[in-house]
Amino acid sequence: MTITKGPQAFPRAEFLRRLGTVKEEMGRRNVDALVVSDPNNITYLTGYTAVSGYVPQGLVVLIDEEEPSFILRQCDAPAALHQAFMDRNKVIAYPEYLIGNPEKDGYDTLIDFLNDAGVANRTIGLEQNSLPVTATEKFKRRLPKAKVVDCTLAVTWIRLVKSDLEIEVMRECAAISDAAVLRAAEVIRPGVREADAVAEIVGTLVRGVNGKPGTLIKLVGLCSSPRTGTCHIPWSEDVFRDGSQINLELGGSRHGYAAGLMRTYSIGAPNDRLQRIHDAEVEGLEAALGAVRPGATCSDVAEAFNRTIAKRGFKKDTRCGYAHGIGWLEPTASLKEGDMTVLKPNMTFHLMLGNWVDEDFGYVISETFRVTEKGADVLTSAPRKIFQI
Amino acid sequence: MTITKGPQAFPRAEFLRRLGTVKEEMGRRNVDALVVSDPNNITYLTGYTAVSGYVPQGLVVLIDEEEPSFILRQCDAPAALHQAFMDRNKVIAYPEYLIGNPEKDGYDTLIDFLNDAGVANRTIGLEQNSLPVTATEKFKRRLPKAKVVDCTLAVTWIRLVKSDLEIEVMRECAAISDAAVLRAAEVIRPGVREADAVAEIVGTLVRGVNGKPGTLIKLVGLCSSPRTGTCHIPWSEDVFRDGSQINLELGGSRHGYAAGLMRTYSIGAPNDRLQRIHDAEVEGLEAALGAVRPGATCSDVAEAFNRTIAKRGFKKDTRCGYAHGIGWLEPTASLKEGDMTVLKPNMTFHLMLGNWVDEDFGYVISETFRVTEKGADVLTSAPRKIFQI
Repeated sequence: MTITKGPQAFPRAEFLRRLGTVKEEMGRRNVDALVVSDPNNITYLTGYTAVSGYVPQGLVVLIDEEEPSFILRQCDAPAALHQAFMDRNKVIAYPEYLIGNPEKDGYDTLIDFLNDAGVANRTIGLEQNSLPVTATEKFKRRLPKAKVVDCTLAVTWIRLVKSDLEIEVMRECAAISDAAVLRAAEVIRPGVREADAVAEIVGTLVRGVNGKPGTLIKLVGLCSSPRTGTCHIPWSEDVFRDGSQINLELGGSRHGYAAGLMRTYSIGAPNDRLQRIHDAEVEGLEAALGAVRPGATCSDVAEAFNRTIAKRGFKKDTRCGYAHGIGWLEPTASLKEGDMTVLKPNMTFHLMLGNWVDEDFGYVISETFRVTEKGADVLTSAPRKIFQI
Repeated sequence: MTITKGPQAFPRAEFLRRLGTVKEEMGRRNVDALVVSDPNNITYLTGYTAVSGYVPQGLVVLIDEEEPSFILRQCDAPAALHQAFMDRNKVIAYPEYLIGNPEKDGYDTLIDFLNDAGVANRTIGLEQNSLPVTATEKFKRRLPKAKVVDCTLAVTWIRLVKSDLEIEVMRECAAISDAAVLRAAEVIRPGVREADAVAEIVGTLVRGVNGKPGTLIKLVGLCSSPRTGTCHIPWSEDVFRDGSQINLELGGSRHGYAAGLMRTYSIGAPNDRLQRIHDAEVEGLEAALGAVRPGATCSDVAEAFNRTIAKRGFKKDTRCGYAHGIGWLEPTASLKEGDMTVLKPNMTFHLMLGNWVDEDFGYVISETFRVTEKGADVLTSAPRKIFQI
């Protein structure tokens, strides 16, 4: 029996619009066939969110075909038939004997497809930084008449500017993030194990809000004293204690998209050092958001933040944020001084103001925002306070 | 202030033993310095489990130094100081301006370190398949007098055989997996949203059992009718329905390790097709475990399974499992016909008997086991039944 097409997060026209933009870029680069292997870019162009990128797979965009073709492992093909917007014949399964096979693998099927598609002597774009080096070598070896060019980040840059439909999904993600931050304030208590609080926080990320559940579990980072100077460590096996500070980073996620949010908690009144950095960072956050407008640069936003907190005697070493959307961090624009990316309406960023000041002290606050015609529209809305427990 | 060393999952002697084995392999390959970039291999050799591998980082094992050196992003250094077993001076932070910088990045710091360590004209091993192609090129360009050789999977193969201490951690993971599978049987109910059940299941994975919480969230796959023919898709936004079948794959996780477990649920009595494949697969599972002994091959185990279910009229296209430990799948040995890897005591596998028969029908069961001196020791212990709701 065939599997039915599942509920689609976006209409067909939206995927065709995205593909149209990609094909325009292919045209500019004189690329006839683009092999997309970054799983987040595959999600962007098809709606597919299943976790199968740990084995070879690739989406082939041909410049003169409406729908792309998705070549993937046989056991993952039903998920693609269910989730991706394309017709059945655009999902091409490669057989299981190509898994864990040093002689021949799924990239050979991809190469066979390119041959059959008549582009073996044309220009083929690869996302080389999403491919093992052996795969890139195989493409060049088995397609000797093709001109193989690197298109790493080409699609990633395109998805920096969201459609209104994508913004709606990110808004749903942001509402989940807000709920999880508020839930944390209810469950972080002295004597409670960190894991028990995380279980509740993740529960909120999955249950979602407004009848819209989370559909993936993205980052949940909980760094408590004496680990507030760390940013990517798992929660501890210990309990929360009186006087502890807790830094929380999380993001609701739907259809592959995320909306990051960070807040800081204090069991008991915040100490002076914590209160001072909080006050400075909130002022900096407002200054950064105030600098957002079409035509300004990423650098302008970071400068506004850095200048503001400098007046209060603080500095932040890490960047002030990054392009944000499918799969959390989009490795394109950074909100940092010197990044001259010009802001455009519907670009989305995680304004990530985590500040790890010392080995044993840091503070976090962040918002997810989109650029509007006039300024910034902040998608997340949890109170900008130290949550005192 | 400096950050304190956190509670260590393994004693120093255990890490030195692992490094000793790696150095023996380096000796066999005439490698003087090994750059480890696979995050799971870094966990194996240091105890570090923070999520920072999305930016350049690397662990350098020098053949004549006791402790390795960990070069990573400045904001992640406190986590390394807290988690990794090495002395402070073995954690080397690179500055933030190297992030998102096309001219110079953290790999340059790694290369500088190799130069300073006096190995610039020696043999340097890279894990090329864990590096972007541009990084490999940079190593070769900036170390022109070095002999750069590929050591992809060298450490990964070593960690296939676990120590008794690692087995204990995997046993703790397995106990969490068992609890989550039992919890699922309590919360899967007709009319309940899949997301609400997943929230409870993940809650169990995080809370853990026996006072030992989960310390990471690994895979939670829940594929319900009509999606039982898919294996890696997220849960749906819908409710469970009377007559539905649910395939669950999950794994408790501690200190980076995981123990995979799959079970199938049926709301109402299983239909004949489901019952028949279950009976065949349980018989096949027992046959596979019966074939496990030191000296047998991965192929022998898969053959025992395949032969047994063939008698009942079934076949399974995907492999019967894979090496299992830190970070879920170890991309080395596969339990499949033709994989001649010889089993040794304390190798650990996920005997993954998920069988996606048709686009709209599949069945799952699995166990995590270790090879003993005489046979198989199954770490997971949930009942081998269809959980009828």
